[in-house]
Amino acid sequence: MTKKTQAEFARNGIITAQMEYVANREKVSPERIRQAIAEGTMVILGNNSRPNVDPVAVGKGIRTKVNASVGSSSDLMESEGELDKLRAAEKAGADTIMDLSSGGDIEGFLRQTIASTGLPVGTVPLYQVAKEAIERYGSVVALTEEDIFTAIERHAEAGVDFMALHCALNMDVIDRLRRQGRVTDIVSRGGAFMTGWMLHHGRENPLYARFDRVLEIAKRYDITLSIGDAIRPGAIADSLDRAQIQGLILVGELVQRALEAGVQVMVEGPGHVPAHHIQTTIQMQKQLCHQVPYFVLGTLVTDIAAGYDHISSAIGATMATMAGADFICYVTPAEHLRLPTAEDVHQGVIAARIATHAGDIAKGIPGAADWDLEMSRARKALDWRRQIELSIDPDHARQVRSARNADDAPACSMCGELCAMKVVSQYLGSDAVEGC
Amino acid sequence: MTKKTQAEFARNGIITAQMEYVANREKVSPERIRQAIAEGTMVILGNNSRPNVDPVAVGKGIRTKVNASVGSSSDLMESEGELDKLRAAEKAGADTIMDLSSGGDIEGFLRQTIASTGLPVGTVPLYQVAKEAIERYGSVVALTEEDIFTAIERHAEAGVDFMALHCALNMDVIDRLRRQGRVTDIVSRGGAFMTGWMLHHGRENPLYARFDRVLEIAKRYDITLSIGDAIRPGAIADSLDRAQIQGLILVGELVQRALEAGVQVMVEGPGHVPAHHIQTTIQMQKQLCHQVPYFVLGTLVTDIAAGYDHISSAIGATMATMAGADFICYVTPAEHLRLPTAEDVHQGVIAARIATHAGDIAKGIPGAADWDLEMSRARKALDWRRQIELSIDPDHARQVRSARNADDAPACSMCGELCAMKVVSQYLGSDAVEGC
Repeated sequence: MTKKTQAEFARNGIITAQMEYVANREKVSPERIRQAIAEGTMVILGNNSRPNVDPVAVGKGIRTKVNASVGSSSDLMESEGELDKLRAAEKAGADTIMDLSSGGDIEGFLRQTIASTGLPVGTVPLYQVAKEAIERYGSVVALTEEDIFTAIERHAEAGVDFMALHCALNMDVIDRLRRQGRVTDIVSRGGAFMTGWMLHHGRENPLYARFDRVLEIAKRYDITLSIGDAIRPGAIADSLDRAQIQGLILVGELVQRALEAGVQVMVEGPGHVPAHHIQTTIQMQKQLCHQVPYFVLGTLVTDIAAGYDHISSAIGATMATMAGADFICYVTPAEHLRLPTAEDVHQGVIAARIATHAGDIAKGIPGAADWDLEMSRARKALDWRRQIELSIDPDHARQVRSARNADDAPACSMCGELCAMKVVSQYLGSDAVEGC
Repeated sequence: MTKKTQAEFARNGIITAQMEYVANREKVSPERIRQAIAEGTMVILGNNSRPNVDPVAVGKGIRTKVNASVGSSSDLMESEGELDKLRAAEKAGADTIMDLSSGGDIEGFLRQTIASTGLPVGTVPLYQVAKEAIERYGSVVALTEEDIFTAIERHAEAGVDFMALHCALNMDVIDRLRRQGRVTDIVSRGGAFMTGWMLHHGRENPLYARFDRVLEIAKRYDITLSIGDAIRPGAIADSLDRAQIQGLILVGELVQRALEAGVQVMVEGPGHVPAHHIQTTIQMQKQLCHQVPYFVLGTLVTDIAAGYDHISSAIGATMATMAGADFICYVTPAEHLRLPTAEDVHQGVIAARIATHAGDIAKGIPGAADWDLEMSRARKALDWRRQIELSIDPDHARQVRSARNADDAPACSMCGELCAMKVVSQYLGSDAVEGC
């Protein structure tokens, strides 16, 4: 007995318990959720065999979501450290977790992650395949087609809710990339592995050639496919080049097949995108890929912010959200330098939440600006307790303020006795004051 | 004997030593600098009586500049602390300093700042006037017209290169503000003081009514006027309201008078601006204010990021720069909470520099993207020494990397042995790899 996917239920006019649940969280009607899922502009992340998942909706017209990627590498693989990062991501307000473990007991880490959170969990199964290929055969390129599908099946059984799969990569795209040349060639790890494999064996990418098998597994578990652009640009100089757009055309074809198969699908995008390319990048994806949700990595508006890439990413993520991106993969201050710590994870999630919130205000998500209005009213009233509560990270805001202000000070050390409140309130009513 | 201003020299077809100097720094021709200054789309910050200033150009077609505001308040007024903040701002790469001291020996702090840096220094003379009015008369509203002009003269003599003066505020604007209502009324401190003064005395703003006297002083020292929008919005809900636009119309009139008088002038702008208002905000200023440079505070794209307002500001500053802003006043993580520390200053300058750089790439400033290209090439080559050198804050990048990587590791702990370099380099040439 095959269970139906949320997409199939939606098209049959059925409002599921999951649709009711996310409608309630998003404060929109269940019927609107159903319609959006039926047309493919929204997905609900939630593997139908995972009992402990709180489904999360991603797509048009609702709050933009933030993903926090955690996971081990071969250099750092401590179970406790991974749990710390997971807790940090949850506490900072991430909507989903990707476990990108690529070192140590990958499946053990994955099962621990899934058991420890109610958030939807995503993976890149190719990392496990590649890591095991090195252990088993001594080389990534020695992995077999069966190894790939076995890993996908195992992740599906473990309860993974969404998977980034590098299906939209074929010989045609690689040829185009080689003819064109690039500053940073391929920066997607999965894309790099598959490219190596394809060129070594002279064979087509199994995730592309056997996409029906991918669809069959995804459908069985109602896993949402995240069709990654395996050749996304890794430098702003490579943005919107022929290789990227060729890949995106291929993504569009696969999205159409997923939609036809009743499989939930979204598209994964860059990456390094200069600010003036962001709107075009989002519009191209929406247009070529049937308006399905767009999950972007950052985007990073400059290549030179190593150590501060959460800021570079927050800039790009705001503009991407504003232009229609639906789901933002955070970037931490550790990007390009090291595997993130729990504190890096915290910083990354907060920066991404500032960005998606600002972008949601700009794209007119109903109710988004209410939070700001409440904060500004608290500011005008000099209600410090409320200002701290309404801050994106209240513990941090409290700490910053208390370091240089008495708890009961009516103003703050920024202006001290020159707080203009004292001057203007008698003429214009009470005021908040800042800056110059 | 009156010296000419840079604007007057430029209009007379004369290329000054200052124009040559900034042309060399900006890598454009002196003639282009002269033309831009003649038409008013560019200013050179540099008081003609200050011997130790390195002139800085602000305006169209050249690198967007970053200002770091430092200064005491009545709660925190230590000379050493102020020097620490100044050093932090310089080391992080600020282009100018505003000394916004409002507590303690304000003129002493100002003279210390000017003596300790070659960067152009700006002030808001009204802060000193207000502080001394409280001490002398017991109330801000008791200050006299003469007190205001005396403070401006004293700052000019001290060598101040640019001044934010709340000239563009009159009874008409205040009436409009009162009739309309606002979430946060007036958040500009200077604007609040002047409003209190005007309503208390029932008299017009002397900085508006006697603008010719302002122009005369500015011209004598070639001080660049920064005509602040005294009633800029302090909440995104107030953005682009009638009061703001009425104020901007007034700014435009005063800008025209400054241009006619041969006084260098720029406009100071918000503040709290939702992302979808930024382009309109910049375009309105450019159009209403004769295309003179725009100096924006942030902008902040959300009100709820207290503790992280440098990030909210970096988002807005990128979009503002891209839309044509010429000069960004940084915002530190301490904004809305306390007077900044030296570390806050550092964080604020770095965030603003990331933003202006990303914006400069987007608006096509010649050569801006070269830095990114060099970084991406270093990344592709896995040249870690060069990557660190090219980072916006090399000391910080080095520290982040070394915390979890051996110094001589070819890859990083992000991917460990799964660095795709090893796989793809033999097929596509060497590659940099990141993310998934």
